[in-house]
Amino acid sequence: MNENLLKTGERIDQLYSDQVKIIQNKDVFSYSIDSVLLSRFPKIPSRGLIVDLCSGNGAVGLFASQQTRARIVEVEIQERLADMAQRSIKLNHLEEQVSMVRDDLKNLLDYVPRSGVDLILCNPPYFKASETSKKNLSEHYLLARHEITTNLEEICQISRHALKSNGRLALVHRPDRFIDILDCLRQYGLAPKRIQFVYPKVGKDANMLLIEAIKDGSIEGLKILPPLIVHQDNGDYTEQIKQIYFGSHENEKESKNL
Amino acid sequence: MNENLLKTGERIDQLYSDQVKIIQNKDVFSYSIDSVLLSRFPKIPSRGLIVDLCSGNGAVGLFASQQTRARIVEVEIQERLADMAQRSIKLNHLEEQVSMVRDDLKNLLDYVPRSGVDLILCNPPYFKASETSKKNLSEHYLLARHEITTNLEEICQISRHALKSNGRLALVHRPDRFIDILDCLRQYGLAPKRIQFVYPKVGKDANMLLIEAIKDGSIEGLKILPPLIVHQDNGDYTEQIKQIYFGSHENEKESKNL
Repeated sequence: MNENLLKTGERIDQLYSDQVKIIQNKDVFSYSIDSVLLSRFPKIPSRGLIVDLCSGNGAVGLFASQQTRARIVEVEIQERLADMAQRSIKLNHLEEQVSMVRDDLKNLLDYVPRSGVDLILCNPPYFKASETSKKNLSEHYLLARHEITTNLEEICQISRHALKSNGRLALVHRPDRFIDILDCLRQYGLAPKRIQFVYPKVGKDANMLLIEAIKDGSIEGLKILPPLIVHQDNGDYTEQIKQIYFGSHENEKESKNL
Repeated sequence: MNENLLKTGERIDQLYSDQVKIIQNKDVFSYSIDSVLLSRFPKIPSRGLIVDLCSGNGAVGLFASQQTRARIVEVEIQERLADMAQRSIKLNHLEEQVSMVRDDLKNLLDYVPRSGVDLILCNPPYFKASETSKKNLSEHYLLARHEITTNLEEICQISRHALKSNGRLALVHRPDRFIDILDCLRQYGLAPKRIQFVYPKVGKDANMLLIEAIKDGSIEGLKILPPLIVHQDNGDYTEQIKQIYFGSHENEKESKNL
Protein backbone atom coordinates (compact mmCIF):
# COMPACT_ATOMS: atom_id res chain seq x y z
CA MET A 1 0.00 0.00 0.00
CA ASN A 2 2.81 2.37 0.90
CA GLU A 3 4.25 1.87 -2.55
CA ASN A 4 1.21 3.61 -4.05
CA LEU A 5 2.51 6.81 -2.50
CA LEU A 6 5.89 6.55 -4.19
CA LYS A 7 6.90 8.07 -7.52
CA THR A 8 9.76 6.95 -9.73
CA GLY A 9 13.14 7.04 -8.00
CA GLU A 10 11.69 7.46 -4.53
CA ARG A 11 12.13 5.24 -1.51
CA ILE A 12 11.03 5.30 2.11
CA ASP A 13 13.58 5.91 4.89
CA GLN A 14 13.06 5.54 8.58
CA LEU A 15 15.21 6.47 11.57
CA TYR A 16 15.44 3.61 14.00
CA SER A 17 14.74 5.81 17.00
CA ASP A 18 11.56 7.06 15.35
CA GLN A 19 8.38 5.55 13.98
CA VAL A 20 8.16 8.14 11.27
CA LYS A 21 8.77 7.25 7.61
CA ILE A 22 10.13 9.78 5.11
CA ILE A 23 9.80 9.64 1.33
CA GLN A 24 13.19 10.37 -0.19
CA ASN A 25 14.61 10.73 -3.67
CA LYS A 26 18.35 11.02 -3.97
CA ASP A 27 18.09 12.78 -7.34
CA VAL A 28 15.79 15.44 -5.97
CA PHE A 29 16.36 15.85 -2.23
CA SER A 30 17.26 13.64 0.71
CA TYR A 31 17.27 14.79 4.29
CA SER A 32 20.62 14.45 5.97
CA ILE A 33 22.17 14.50 9.41
CA ASP A 34 21.61 18.24 9.74
CA SER A 35 17.84 17.69 9.67
CA VAL A 36 18.05 14.95 12.25
CA LEU A 37 20.18 17.06 14.60
CA LEU A 38 17.98 20.13 14.15
CA SER A 39 14.83 18.16 15.05
CA ARG A 40 16.53 17.00 18.29
CA PHE A 41 18.14 20.31 19.24
CA PRO A 42 15.49 22.60 20.74
CA LYS A 43 13.10 21.69 23.51
CA ILE A 44 9.96 20.84 21.51
CA PRO A 45 6.85 22.37 23.13
CA SER A 46 4.29 19.70 24.05
CA ARG A 47 1.41 21.75 22.61
CA GLY A 48 0.92 24.88 20.54
CA LEU A 49 2.15 25.68 17.05
CA ILE A 50 5.43 24.72 15.40
CA VAL A 51 6.63 25.81 11.96
CA ASP A 52 9.27 24.03 9.87
CA LEU A 53 10.62 26.60 7.41
CA CYS A 54 12.53 25.46 4.30
CA SER A 55 11.13 22.06 5.11
CA GLY A 56 12.28 20.28 1.94
CA ASN A 57 10.74 16.82 2.00
CA GLY A 58 9.37 17.52 5.48
CA ALA A 59 11.83 15.50 7.53
CA VAL A 60 12.45 18.01 10.35
CA GLY A 61 8.77 18.62 11.05
CA LEU A 62 7.94 14.93 10.76
CA PHE A 63 10.67 13.99 13.23
CA ALA A 64 9.47 16.71 15.58
CA SER A 65 5.89 15.39 15.34
CA GLN A 66 6.94 12.30 17.28
CA GLN A 67 7.85 14.39 20.33
CA THR A 68 4.77 16.59 20.67
CA ARG A 69 1.04 17.08 20.22
CA ALA A 70 1.64 20.60 18.84
CA ARG A 71 0.30 21.40 15.41
CA ILE A 72 3.09 21.54 12.84
CA VAL A 73 3.13 23.60 9.64
CA GLU A 74 5.76 22.75 7.04
CA VAL A 75 6.68 25.45 4.51
CA GLU A 76 8.54 24.69 1.30
CA ILE A 77 8.67 26.70 -1.92
CA GLN A 78 9.61 23.82 -4.25
CA GLU A 79 6.57 22.00 -5.62
CA ARG A 80 8.38 18.69 -6.06
CA LEU A 81 9.65 18.62 -2.46
CA ALA A 82 6.38 19.86 -0.98
CA ASP A 83 4.65 17.03 -2.86
CA MET A 84 7.01 14.46 -1.31
CA ALA A 85 6.36 15.94 2.14
CA GLN A 86 2.60 15.87 1.58
CA ARG A 87 2.76 12.18 0.76
CA SER A 88 5.00 11.47 3.78
CA ILE A 89 2.40 13.13 6.00
CA LYS A 90 -0.22 10.80 4.53
CA LEU A 91 2.07 7.78 4.77
CA ASN A 92 2.43 8.41 8.51
CA HIS A 93 -1.28 9.22 9.03
CA LEU A 94 -0.30 12.62 10.41
CA GLU A 95 -2.81 14.71 8.42
CA GLU A 96 -4.45 15.90 11.65
CA GLN A 97 -1.21 17.17 13.15
CA VAL A 98 1.05 18.16 10.27
CA SER A 99 0.15 20.33 7.29
CA MET A 100 2.16 21.31 4.24
CA VAL A 101 2.26 24.80 2.75
CA ARG A 102 3.75 25.12 -0.73
CA ASP A 103 4.65 28.78 -0.79
CA ASP A 104 7.39 31.34 -0.32
CA LEU A 105 8.17 31.62 3.38
CA LYS A 106 7.67 35.38 3.11
CA ASN A 107 3.94 34.56 2.98
CA LEU A 108 3.97 32.58 6.23
CA LEU A 109 1.51 34.96 7.90
CA ASP A 110 -1.12 33.89 5.36
CA TYR A 111 -1.10 30.51 7.12
CA VAL A 112 -0.30 31.14 10.80
CA PRO A 113 -1.35 33.96 13.12
CA ARG A 114 1.08 36.84 13.64
CA SER A 115 2.91 36.39 16.98
CA GLY A 116 1.23 32.99 17.26
CA VAL A 117 4.05 30.45 16.79
CA ASP A 118 5.84 28.74 19.68
CA LEU A 119 8.81 27.31 17.79
CA ILE A 120 10.25 27.72 14.31
CA LEU A 121 12.66 25.10 13.03
CA CYS A 122 14.69 25.96 9.96
CA ASN A 123 17.31 24.15 7.91
CA PRO A 124 17.91 26.92 5.39
CA PRO A 125 20.09 27.17 2.28
CA TYR A 126 23.63 27.44 3.67
CA PHE A 127 25.50 29.18 0.90
CA LYS A 128 25.30 32.72 -0.37
CA ALA A 129 23.88 32.89 -3.88
CA SER A 130 27.21 34.31 -5.03
CA GLU A 131 29.06 31.20 -3.86
CA THR A 132 27.54 28.83 -6.38
CA SER A 133 29.12 27.84 -9.64
CA LYS A 134 25.68 26.41 -10.49
CA LYS A 135 27.40 23.41 -11.98
CA ASN A 136 26.59 19.80 -11.24
CA LEU A 137 23.51 20.61 -9.22
CA SER A 138 19.92 19.78 -9.98
CA GLU A 139 17.63 22.76 -9.62
CA HIS A 140 16.17 21.17 -6.50
CA TYR A 141 19.53 20.93 -4.74
CA LEU A 142 20.57 24.35 -6.02
CA LEU A 143 17.57 26.04 -4.38
CA ALA A 144 17.89 23.95 -1.22
CA ARG A 145 21.57 24.81 -0.74
CA HIS A 146 21.98 28.36 -2.02
CA GLU A 147 20.27 31.56 -0.96
CA ILE A 148 18.39 31.99 -4.21
CA THR A 149 14.73 31.87 -3.22
CA THR A 150 15.34 33.00 0.37
CA ASN A 151 18.13 34.07 2.70
CA LEU A 152 18.99 34.53 6.37
CA GLU A 153 17.49 37.97 6.53
CA GLU A 154 14.09 36.87 5.22
CA ILE A 155 14.09 33.92 7.60
CA CYS A 156 14.84 36.06 10.63
CA GLN A 157 12.37 38.72 9.55
CA ILE A 158 9.42 36.37 9.08
CA SER A 159 10.36 34.53 12.27
CA ARG A 160 10.22 37.82 14.15
CA HIS A 161 6.68 38.41 12.89
CA ALA A 162 5.40 34.86 13.36
CA LEU A 163 6.83 33.99 16.78
CA LYS A 164 5.15 34.68 20.07
CA SER A 165 7.09 36.83 22.49
CA ASN A 166 9.57 34.35 24.03
CA GLY A 167 8.93 31.98 21.13
CA ARG A 168 12.06 30.36 19.74
CA LEU A 169 13.80 30.03 16.39
CA ALA A 170 16.14 27.01 16.00
CA LEU A 171 18.50 26.97 13.02
CA VAL A 172 21.12 24.61 11.68
CA HIS A 173 23.79 26.33 9.62
CA ARG A 174 27.50 26.50 8.82
CA PRO A 175 30.14 28.04 11.10
CA ASP A 176 31.49 30.29 8.37
CA ARG A 177 28.13 32.10 8.41
CA PHE A 178 28.15 32.38 12.20
CA ILE A 179 28.72 36.14 12.39
CA ASP A 180 26.05 36.77 9.71
CA ILE A 181 23.64 34.65 11.70
CA LEU A 182 24.26 36.52 14.96
CA ASP A 183 23.88 39.87 13.19
CA CYS A 184 20.65 38.87 11.52
CA LEU A 185 19.16 37.47 14.72
CA ARG A 186 19.94 40.67 16.54
CA GLN A 187 18.54 42.82 13.76
CA TYR A 188 15.19 41.13 14.30
CA GLY A 189 15.20 41.04 18.09
CA LEU A 190 16.02 37.34 18.39
CA ALA A 191 18.49 36.70 21.23
CA PRO A 192 20.76 33.64 20.88
CA LYS A 193 20.53 31.45 23.97
CA ARG A 194 21.96 28.04 23.09
CA ILE A 195 24.63 27.17 20.54
CA GLN A 196 26.05 23.76 19.76
CA PHE A 197 28.93 23.16 17.37
CA VAL A 198 29.10 19.93 15.40
CA TYR A 199 32.47 18.47 14.38
CA PRO A 200 32.94 15.75 11.74
CA LYS A 201 35.66 14.02 13.82
CA VAL A 202 37.87 14.57 16.87
CA GLY A 203 40.54 17.15 16.05
CA LYS A 204 38.64 18.69 13.11
CA ASP A 205 37.11 22.18 12.89
CA ALA A 206 33.35 22.45 13.30
CA ASN A 207 31.39 22.06 10.05
CA MET A 208 27.91 22.67 11.40
CA LEU A 209 26.25 24.69 14.15
CA LEU A 210 22.89 24.59 15.87
CA ILE A 211 21.56 27.80 17.35
CA GLU A 212 18.42 28.66 19.28
CA ALA A 213 17.25 32.24 19.74
CA ILE A 214 14.37 33.70 21.73
CA LYS A 215 12.17 36.51 20.49
CA ASP A 216 12.55 39.54 22.78
CA GLY A 217 14.97 37.62 25.03
CA SER A 218 17.88 39.27 26.81
CA ILE A 219 21.33 38.77 25.32
CA GLU A 220 22.62 37.65 28.73
CA GLY A 221 23.09 33.99 29.53
CA LEU A 222 24.24 32.47 26.24
CA LYS A 223 25.24 28.82 26.63
CA ILE A 224 27.69 26.91 24.44
CA LEU A 225 26.52 23.31 24.70
CA PRO A 226 28.85 20.30 24.72
CA PRO A 227 30.43 19.60 21.33
CA LEU A 228 28.82 17.02 19.09
CA ILE A 229 31.31 14.79 17.25
CA VAL A 230 29.77 12.86 14.36
CA HIS A 231 32.29 10.18 13.33
CA GLN A 232 34.86 8.06 15.07
CA ASP A 233 38.32 7.82 13.52
CA ASN A 234 37.27 4.57 11.80
CA GLY A 235 34.34 6.35 10.11
CA ASP A 236 31.59 4.84 12.27
CA TYR A 237 29.18 7.14 14.02
CA THR A 238 30.14 8.10 17.58
CA GLU A 239 28.02 6.88 20.49
CA GLN A 240 26.49 10.38 20.73
CA ILE A 241 25.18 10.15 17.17
CA LYS A 242 24.12 6.50 17.46
CA GLN A 243 22.07 7.50 20.47
CA ILE A 244 20.33 10.17 18.40
CA TYR A 245 19.80 7.94 15.36
CA PHE A 246 19.02 4.66 17.01
CA GLY A 247 17.93 5.59 20.51
CA SER A 248 18.49 2.62 22.77
CA HIS A 249 18.38 0.16 19.84
CA GLU A 250 22.05 0.35 19.02
CA ASN A 251 22.26 -3.15 17.68
CA GLU A 252 19.57 -2.73 15.08
CA LYS A 253 20.42 -2.54 11.45
CA GLU A 254 21.51 0.95 10.49
CA SER A 255 19.08 3.29 8.83
CA LYS A 256 20.23 3.57 5.28
CA ASN A 257 21.47 6.54 3.33
CA LEU A 258 21.81 9.02 6.17
CA MET B 1 69.95 32.49 44.71
CA ASN B 2 66.43 32.33 43.25
CA GLU B 3 65.04 32.64 46.75
CA ASN B 4 66.44 36.17 46.96
CA LEU B 5 63.86 37.15 44.37
CA LEU B 6 60.96 35.88 46.45
CA LYS B 7 58.89 37.87 48.92
CA THR B 8 56.80 36.46 51.77
CA GLY B 9 54.15 33.98 50.61
CA GLU B 10 55.60 33.61 47.12
CA ARG B 11 56.81 30.44 45.42
CA ILE B 12 58.18 29.55 42.00
CA ASP B 13 56.08 27.47 39.58
CA GLN B 14 57.20 25.91 36.34
CA LEU B 15 55.28 24.18 33.56
CA TYR B 16 56.93 20.94 32.64
CA SER B 17 56.74 21.64 28.92
CA ASP B 18 58.51 24.97 29.46
CA GLN B 19 61.79 26.13 30.91
CA VAL B 20 60.24 29.31 32.22
CA LYS B 21 59.73 29.87 35.96
CA ILE B 22 56.92 32.05 37.29
CA ILE B 23 56.78 33.73 40.70
CA GLN B 24 53.36 33.11 42.19
CA ASN B 25 51.53 34.08 45.37
CA LYS B 26 48.22 32.45 45.99
CA ASP B 27 47.07 35.30 48.23
CA VAL B 28 47.75 37.87 45.55
CA PHE B 29 47.53 36.28 42.11
CA SER B 30 48.34 32.94 40.53
CA TYR B 31 48.19 32.24 36.85
CA SER B 32 45.79 29.49 35.91
CA ILE B 33 44.90 27.24 32.99
CA ASP B 34 43.42 30.15 31.06
CA SER B 35 46.85 31.80 30.86
CA VAL B 36 48.48 28.58 29.72
CA LEU B 37 45.88 28.00 27.00
CA LEU B 38 46.03 31.61 25.82
CA SER B 39 49.82 31.48 25.44
CA ARG B 40 49.45 28.35 23.25
CA PHE B 41 46.45 29.51 21.20
CA PRO B 42 47.64 31.98 18.54
CA LYS B 43 50.49 31.42 16.14
CA ILE B 44 53.29 33.32 17.89
CA PRO B 45 55.29 35.42 15.38
CA SER B 46 58.97 34.44 15.35
CA ARG B 47 60.09 38.08 15.39
CA GLY B 48 58.57 41.51 15.87
CA LEU B 49 56.66 42.91 18.82
CA ILE B 50 54.21 41.15 21.14
CA VAL B 51 52.19 42.77 23.93
CA ASP B 52 50.66 40.94 26.90
CA LEU B 53 47.83 43.14 28.20
CA CYS B 54 46.43 42.59 31.72
CA SER B 55 49.53 40.50 32.25
CA GLY B 56 49.12 39.91 35.99
CA ASN B 57 52.27 38.19 37.19
CA GLY B 58 53.48 37.96 33.60
CA ALA B 59 52.77 34.30 32.93
CA VAL B 60 51.27 34.61 29.41
CA GLY B 61 54.10 36.73 28.05
CA LEU B 62 56.72 34.59 29.77
CA PHE B 63 55.26 31.40 28.32
CA ALA B 64 55.13 33.05 24.88
CA SER B 65 58.79 34.09 25.19
CA GLN B 66 59.83 30.45 24.90
CA GLN B 67 58.35 30.21 21.40
CA THR B 68 59.80 33.33 19.76
CA ARG B 69 62.59 35.87 19.48
CA ALA B 70 60.03 38.70 19.30
CA ARG B 71 60.29 41.48 21.87
CA ILE B 72 57.53 41.16 24.49
CA VAL B 73 55.99 44.00 26.49
CA GLU B 74 53.91 43.07 29.53
CA VAL B 75 51.37 45.63 30.76
CA GLU B 76 49.81 45.43 34.21
CA ILE B 77 48.21 48.18 36.27
CA GLN B 78 48.66 46.55 39.69
CA GLU B 79 52.00 47.43 41.30
CA ARG B 80 52.20 44.22 43.33
CA LEU B 81 51.64 41.96 40.29
CA ALA B 82 53.90 44.00 38.02
CA ASP B 83 56.60 43.64 40.66
CA MET B 84 56.22 39.85 40.67
CA ALA B 85 56.40 39.81 36.86
CA GLN B 86 59.50 42.01 36.90
CA ARG B 87 61.25 39.58 39.22
CA SER B 88 60.14 36.57 37.11
CA ILE B 89 61.70 38.24 34.07
CA LYS B 90 64.94 38.56 36.04
CA LEU B 91 64.68 35.02 37.39
CA ASN B 92 64.55 33.70 33.82
CA HIS B 93 67.27 36.06 32.55
CA LEU B 94 64.83 37.45 29.99
CA GLU B 95 65.53 41.15 30.57
CA GLU B 96 66.71 41.55 26.96
CA GLN B 97 63.51 40.12 25.49
CA VAL B 98 60.71 40.87 27.95
CA SER B 99 59.92 44.18 29.58
CA MET B 100 57.32 45.11 32.16
CA VAL B 101 55.18 48.25 32.06
CA ARG B 102 53.33 49.16 35.24
CA ASP B 103 50.60 51.39 33.85
CA ASP B 104 47.01 51.60 32.71
CA LEU B 105 46.68 49.82 29.36
CA LYS B 106 45.07 52.98 27.96
CA ASN B 107 48.61 54.41 27.94
CA LEU B 108 50.06 51.57 25.86
CA LEU B 109 51.07 53.92 23.03
CA ASP B 110 53.50 55.61 25.42
CA TYR B 111 55.51 52.37 25.29
CA VAL B 112 54.98 50.84 21.82
CA PRO B 113 54.67 52.50 18.39
CA ARG B 114 51.16 53.11 17.04
CA SER B 115 50.31 50.39 14.47
CA GLY B 116 53.56 48.67 15.42
CA VAL B 117 52.50 45.50 17.30
CA ASP B 118 52.29 42.07 15.66
CA LEU B 119 50.33 40.25 18.34
CA ILE B 120 48.45 41.25 21.48
CA LEU B 121 47.67 38.56 24.04
CA CYS B 122 45.12 39.41 26.70
CA ASN B 123 43.62 37.55 29.64
CA PRO B 124 41.32 40.33 30.81
CA PRO B 125 38.97 40.66 33.78
CA TYR B 126 36.04 38.38 32.88
CA PHE B 127 33.19 39.83 34.88
CA LYS B 128 31.31 43.07 34.51
CA ALA B 129 31.96 45.45 37.41
CA SER B 130 28.28 45.18 38.30
CA GLU B 131 28.54 41.43 38.79
CA THR B 132 30.75 41.57 41.85
CA SER B 133 29.51 41.34 45.41
CA LYS B 134 33.03 42.51 46.34
CA LYS B 135 33.00 40.01 49.19
CA ASN B 136 35.71 37.48 49.90
CA LEU B 137 38.10 38.90 47.35
CA SER B 138 41.45 40.53 47.89
CA GLU B 139 41.82 43.80 46.03
CA HIS B 140 44.29 42.07 43.70
CA TYR B 141 41.83 39.38 42.66
CA LEU B 142 38.98 41.85 42.48
CA LEU B 143 40.80 44.00 39.92
CA ALA B 144 42.06 40.95 38.00
CA ARG B 145 38.61 39.42 37.69
CA HIS B 146 36.20 42.35 37.37
CA GLU B 147 36.05 45.16 34.86
CA ILE B 148 36.97 47.85 37.35
CA THR B 149 40.22 49.30 36.05
CA THR B 150 39.57 48.30 32.43
CA ASN B 151 36.97 46.59 30.24
CA LEU B 152 36.48 44.92 26.86
CA GLU B 153 35.92 48.18 25.07
CA GLU B 154 39.18 49.73 26.27
CA ILE B 155 41.06 46.56 25.40
CA CYS B 156 39.68 46.45 21.84
CA GLN B 157 40.18 50.18 21.37
CA ILE B 158 43.84 50.22 22.41
CA SER B 159 44.46 47.02 20.45
CA ARG B 160 43.08 48.72 17.36
CA HIS B 161 45.55 51.57 17.79
CA ALA B 162 48.57 49.47 18.69
CA LEU B 163 48.27 46.61 16.19
CA LYS B 164 49.74 46.64 12.72
CA SER B 165 47.28 46.14 9.88
CA ASN B 166 46.74 42.36 9.87
CA GLY B 167 48.16 42.18 13.39
CA ARG B 168 46.24 39.91 15.72
CA LEU B 169 44.51 40.15 19.10
CA ALA B 170 44.12 36.86 21.02
CA LEU B 171 41.79 36.84 24.02
CA VAL B 172 40.70 34.27 26.55
CA HIS B 173 37.27 34.97 28.03
CA ARG B 174 33.97 33.45 29.15
CA PRO B 175 31.23 32.21 26.79
CA ASP B 176 28.54 34.28 28.48
CA ARG B 177 30.40 37.39 27.24
CA PHE B 178 30.73 35.99 23.72
CA ILE B 179 28.28 38.37 22.05
CA ASP B 180 29.81 41.38 23.84
CA ILE B 181 33.23 40.28 22.62
CA LEU B 182 32.13 39.94 19.00
CA ASP B 183 30.43 43.34 19.13
CA CYS B 184 33.46 45.02 20.64
CA LEU B 185 35.85 43.45 18.16
CA ARG B 186 33.73 44.63 15.27
CA GLN B 187 33.38 48.13 16.68
CA TYR B 188 37.16 48.45 16.47
CA GLY B 189 37.69 46.77 13.11
CA LEU B 190 39.02 43.49 14.51
CA ALA B 191 37.67 40.50 12.54
CA PRO B 192 37.36 37.20 14.45
CA LYS B 193 39.13 34.41 12.57
CA ARG B 194 39.64 31.51 14.99
CA ILE B 195 37.54 30.54 17.99
CA GLN B 196 38.08 27.60 20.31
CA PHE B 197 35.68 26.65 23.07
CA VAL B 198 37.00 25.01 26.24
CA TYR B 199 34.83 22.57 28.20
CA PRO B 200 35.54 21.44 31.77
CA LYS B 201 34.47 17.84 30.99
CA VAL B 202 32.72 15.78 28.32
CA GLY B 203 29.00 16.59 28.32
CA LYS B 204 29.39 19.98 30.05
CA ASP B 205 28.77 23.43 28.58
CA ALA B 206 31.84 25.47 27.60
CA ASN B 207 33.26 27.59 30.43
CA MET B 208 36.02 29.35 28.51
CA LEU B 209 36.69 30.54 24.98
CA LEU B 210 39.78 31.54 23.05
CA ILE B 211 39.35 33.99 20.19
CA GLU B 212 41.76 35.47 17.68
CA ALA B 213 40.89 38.52 15.61
CA ILE B 214 42.77 40.29 12.82
CA LYS B 215 42.95 44.05 12.47
CA ASP B 216 41.32 45.11 9.18
CA GLY B 217 40.62 41.45 8.29
CA SER B 218 37.53 40.36 6.38
CA ILE B 219 34.73 38.77 8.38
CA GLU B 220 34.68 35.82 5.96
CA GLY B 221 36.34 32.55 6.85
CA LEU B 222 35.77 32.21 10.58
CA LYS B 223 36.93 28.84 11.91
CA ILE B 224 35.62 27.05 15.00
CA LEU B 225 38.56 24.93 16.13
CA PRO B 226 38.21 21.48 17.68
CA PRO B 227 36.83 21.55 21.23
CA LEU B 228 39.27 21.47 24.11
CA ILE B 229 38.14 19.28 27.02
CA VAL B 230 40.07 19.90 30.24
CA HIS B 231 39.26 17.04 32.61
CA GLN B 232 38.48 13.37 32.28
CA ASP B 233 35.52 12.02 34.22
CA ASN B 234 37.89 10.92 36.99
CA GLY B 235 39.18 14.49 37.39
CA ASP B 236 42.57 13.94 35.74
CA TYR B 237 43.59 16.16 32.87
CA THR B 238 42.73 14.86 29.40
CA GLU B 239 45.53 13.88 27.03
CA GLN B 240 44.98 17.16 25.15
CA ILE B 241 45.72 19.19 28.26
CA LYS B 242 48.58 16.96 29.40
CA GLN B 243 50.16 17.52 26.01
CA ILE B 244 49.92 21.26 26.52
CA TYR B 245 51.14 21.20 30.12
CA PHE B 246 53.77 18.52 29.94
CA GLY B 247 54.63 18.29 26.25
CA SER B 248 56.05 14.86 25.60
CA HIS B 249 57.03 14.34 29.25
CA GLU B 250 53.75 12.86 30.36
CA ASN B 251 55.24 10.74 33.06
CA GLU B 252 56.90 13.58 34.89
CA LYS B 253 55.61 14.78 38.20
CA GLU B 254 52.73 17.20 37.69
CA SER B 255 53.37 20.90 37.87
CA LYS B 256 51.80 22.04 41.09
CA ASN B 257 48.94 24.38 41.72
CA LEU B 258 47.70 24.76 38.16
